[in-house]
Amino acid sequence: MTQTLEPQAEPDATTPDARAQAWFAAFESALAAADGAAVADLCARECYWRDLVSFSWNLTTVEGHAGVADLVTENAARVAAHGFALTEPADEADGVVTAWFGFETSVGRGTGLARFVEEDGGLRAWTFLTTLDEIKGHEEPRGTRRPKGVAHGAFKDRVTWKEAREQEAADLGVTEQPYVLIIGGGQGGIALGSRLRQHGVPALTIDKHDRPGDQWRRRYKSLCLHDPVWYDHLPYLKFPDNWPVFAPKDKIGDWLEFYTRVMEVPYWSKTVATSASYDEERGEWTVEVERDGQPLTLHPTQLVLATGMSGKANVPRLPGQDVFRGEQHHSSQHPGPDAYAGKKCVVIGSNNSAFDICGALWEVGADVTMVQRSSTHIVKSDTLMDIGLGALYSEEAVAGGVTTEKADLIFASLPYRILHTFQIPLYDQMREKDKDFYDRMEKAGFWLDWGPDGSGLFMKYLRRGSGYYIDVGAAELVADGEVKLVRGQVDHLTESAVVLEDGTELDADLVVYATGYGSMNGWAADLISQEVADRVGKVWGLGSDTPKDPGPWEGEQRNMWKPTQQPGLWFHGGNLHQSRHYSQFLALQLKARYLGLDTPVYRLQEVHHLG
Amino acid sequence: MTQTLEPQAEPDATTPDARAQAWFAAFESALAAADGAAVADLCARECYWRDLVSFSWNLTTVEGHAGVADLVTENAARVAAHGFALTEPADEADGVVTAWFGFETSVGRGTGLARFVEEDGGLRAWTFLTTLDEIKGHEEPRGTRRPKGVAHGAFKDRVTWKEAREQEAADLGVTEQPYVLIIGGGQGGIALGSRLRQHGVPALTIDKHDRPGDQWRRRYKSLCLHDPVWYDHLPYLKFPDNWPVFAPKDKIGDWLEFYTRVMEVPYWSKTVATSASYDEERGEWTVEVERDGQPLTLHPTQLVLATGMSGKANVPRLPGQDVFRGEQHHSSQHPGPDAYAGKKCVVIGSNNSAFDICGALWEVGADVTMVQRSSTHIVKSDTLMDIGLGALYSEEAVAGGVTTEKADLIFASLPYRILHTFQIPLYDQMREKDKDFYDRMEKAGFWLDWGPDGSGLFMKYLRRGSGYYIDVGAAELVADGEVKLVRGQVDHLTESAVVLEDGTELDADLVVYATGYGSMNGWAADLISQEVADRVGKVWGLGSDTPKDPGPWEGEQRNMWKPTQQPGLWFHGGNLHQSRHYSQFLALQLKARYLGLDTPVYRLQEVHHLG
Repeated sequence: MTQTLEPQAEPDATTPDARAQAWFAAFESALAAADGAAVADLCARECYWRDLVSFSWNLTTVEGHAGVADLVTENAARVAAHGFALTEPADEADGVVTAWFGFETSVGRGTGLARFVEEDGGLRAWTFLTTLDEIKGHEEPRGTRRPKGVAHGAFKDRVTWKEAREQEAADLGVTEQPYVLIIGGGQGGIALGSRLRQHGVPALTIDKHDRPGDQWRRRYKSLCLHDPVWYDHLPYLKFPDNWPVFAPKDKIGDWLEFYTRVMEVPYWSKTVATSASYDEERGEWTVEVERDGQPLTLHPTQLVLATGMSGKANVPRLPGQDVFRGEQHHSSQHPGPDAYAGKKCVVIGSNNSAFDICGALWEVGADVTMVQRSSTHIVKSDTLMDIGLGALYSEEAVAGGVTTEKADLIFASLPYRILHTFQIPLYDQMREKDKDFYDRMEKAGFWLDWGPDGSGLFMKYLRRGSGYYIDVGAAELVADGEVKLVRGQVDHLTESAVVLEDGTELDADLVVYATGYGSMNGWAADLISQEVADRVGKVWGLGSDTPKDPGPWEGEQRNMWKPTQQPGLWFHGGNLHQSRHYSQFLALQLKARYLGLDTPVYRLQEVHHLG
Repeated sequence: MTQTLEPQAEPDATTPDARAQAWFAAFESALAAADGAAVADLCARECYWRDLVSFSWNLTTVEGHAGVADLVTENAARVAAHGFALTEPADEADGVVTAWFGFETSVGRGTGLARFVEEDGGLRAWTFLTTLDEIKGHEEPRGTRRPKGVAHGAFKDRVTWKEAREQEAADLGVTEQPYVLIIGGGQGGIALGSRLRQHGVPALTIDKHDRPGDQWRRRYKSLCLHDPVWYDHLPYLKFPDNWPVFAPKDKIGDWLEFYTRVMEVPYWSKTVATSASYDEERGEWTVEVERDGQPLTLHPTQLVLATGMSGKANVPRLPGQDVFRGEQHHSSQHPGPDAYAGKKCVVIGSNNSAFDICGALWEVGADVTMVQRSSTHIVKSDTLMDIGLGALYSEEAVAGGVTTEKADLIFASLPYRILHTFQIPLYDQMREKDKDFYDRMEKAGFWLDWGPDGSGLFMKYLRRGSGYYIDVGAAELVADGEVKLVRGQVDHLTESAVVLEDGTELDADLVVYATGYGSMNGWAADLISQEVADRVGKVWGLGSDTPKDPGPWEGEQRNMWKPTQQPGLWFHGGNLHQSRHYSQFLALQLKARYLGLDTPVYRLQEVHHLG
């Protein structure tokens, strides 16, 4: 066979890479003209553009041609996005072209991830993620920009690092006000505090416990993280490769303490905020705190509640609670099992806390009964790790080039509106894999569910933050009858028992209300006022119109990591993954305000529910 | 132009990669036959094989055909090395083919780096590095082997991580003896302790200070690391990318303290060893320690001195020291400058400590005179970083794929015999770059040198561990006359002055003897006995027959990180780079002994100098 070598043709316009490049060229032109219709025309009929701060100064997802056109029309001129370029060759699989890209705006630099489909004879964007990475002229001092550390030379007024840190600690909250006050110093407050420190935004994290990490240390003794290590990294400093897959609580506590110190996060332990009020005119909060018992008034411009995504405890009011002679408390107040060996314990609830507490009580030899009031979704931890997270967060993913940073963006690029469609097949696999386990649970009388649409645990987490158990062992105790199970609603308590609506009487020395938590705006009600809590409305949930996640559709986590209807008030938190990834965007929003940049919020969320 | 496409020929035997592969095939065959002559024949006439543990259970470099043949003849049958394979394509530059490779031995897996030259019509090994990475069946629990952390399931006898750690801490040294006792808990003791922890070897690090990191915190206040961050990482957990280039001492102190905690290094602070003796028959040490004032006897099998590579302070004996009415102390005892504002200070010596102390005293307003007794080599810190380290340890190196791990191996692969030939051109560049500075120093009367062969700082460090200053600013004070300089030998002290041999009288309220340190076997003399110290002999130095590094040629750092003539006694330390890299090899040697493997030492070093 012979062939003639011709001069190389133009780059092959049929490669995924060339097609994606051509698409971005057209996109950039349409964007430059702020031509919403033209941009929409580059998108598939079903399309989602999720923007994390770079275009919208908000976390928002627009849907369909109308949504895309609106986002462009409202923002493109101001944002002046340009310089779109693929950061690695675009890839095609199953008819979807995937492209990682970078871009600039008038104020910053961003990263994006797009998925394209073929439609009407051309490549059209199906999912489109844009994120803000940094603000130009205010890049973080990392890598080539890292600080020098030493001031070479000889100076009669030299101030050492230690002296500077001590002076800063002495001034903070006394002569220098933090621009941002973060209430709550768990992983959320620490991750955000660390980001703000890096960004040079004066911030202070306060927490009621004795030391950073006590939020974990003080929980029940057998607790380990339910998520695997690859999912749990904090910003900037990853766990070393000897870190356990599921870290024990005290080890995580030590890491958080270490991290807070070496990242130089300004952090006050033993400090509680007792009240807060906002002065609209001055654009400033007055926050009363007690630091190690001493009262102090702070005046931050921005107030972040990072007090736990679970919000305030829901304790049911039941007749007879006043006559019950045993001990009763909410799961969040449960001191651990040690005092209850040999005691009769009734745990009301059947989600994570309930199972964890039942398991720990059984381990010390308590007589344990679980009261299941509604259906629960259960997945085995190992199965969840393999099937649910493995593609993005695992040793194999890292080996395949999916760093935590990339995994976070891939995950963020899946629009909430269709996320369940990616999840359902995974949970179908899990159900099949652990069929024997589920059969045994049902045989034991346990009322299982897989979410209203079979989409499983992560959607339940995002929609309502409850309704599931990641099984690390306690479910088997229920299946085996080692932990007794009864189903029904509690009617009242007597001096010595819990009585269900059907008359079942459960003798009890201890009653644990593992009855969940309210919306996080409850924290605002307690700290600020009911009026402000109501102005902000419900925190968490997508508006999916499924149980405990009422509509209308919001398309993002309500009120999380983004501006609320209350100026200067923000909510931060979630699991370690969210604390890590979304702290990036919350920190940039706060930094932009600190710098005095214009930050017009596109589609500031409406409030539909008070809590 | 047309051409005929032929079936692909055999891999091109002229590519560097194919040639290196062919070389390794021949090498492996010759090795399998334990044919020393055949292996030697594959080497260039000038050749160096440096083995770090994998072939020799030693750190050793053999030179020339005779050396290679001997190493093979003595070890190849036992080691049974095989499976040599390139780990990335071999590369050719300037007539040298460079190949990274992996291999196995009868007991472990290793990594190597070879450089080949063309000689006698074929590829011949010029430099050849073999290292041991892990012992088969005893791999470290990292990455895919990391611990699970939680024991899923429900157990009535559950022991939590915290409980296990507390039990271990209570038992260690009381009912459980450490197999390895490491005396000295600076970066050396911590890095080795961390490796042994990972390897599952029971070890204990003891240190006299209150907290890990105090070794740095307690030094003079303006101290920052003189080496840049890329050179300074500890094993397993790298500094984050916001870490300063030259970290301040207190920041390094904090890092060491928390590293010790999160790596779970068994570590006793406030503990001193008061005596040690070895029972040859039992193969065990008896070490008396005081832990927080309480006496305790330990019985480790292996004893590691990590008490500082500088060894014991050299304090000159001078007439009149007994009549001098001011304050006098060795640089290692210098408390920092604060008490000496306005005082007349005479610093005897002109190396690192002398300059650092002079600079700090000047900064607080002392009247400072430096006494230079011999020539000193000075390089500016920034210049050293750019020219001396940049190719291996810098942001650019990391971006170019030269990880710290790779840089360490590249550095280790350069034979000590010819290392100076790689260094000389770098120091020629530095001299040129900072010519103006050196001219000013000489004009100020400073006696400069560049090492006996112009090979500069790093060779001085390896040969004698002294004789230089990495200028972070204080040299300019001498150039400007802000710190006064006199040259000469000290003859005696009077009640109020230092008097030189030429009669010069220097009034002094304070005399600092920045007069260096002795050999590390001085520690052994103090702790164990002079007899053992003499059996071990001089520690440090290459045997280069240059000042303070007497011959004969050793070819490795004497007595460092490898077996000594005293069974069960080891020396560990050096800068952060050495503490990191060589702790790998010391840990594997200790682990092999802990496992009871046969560890015949090839070429156990001879002793030529007592200290």
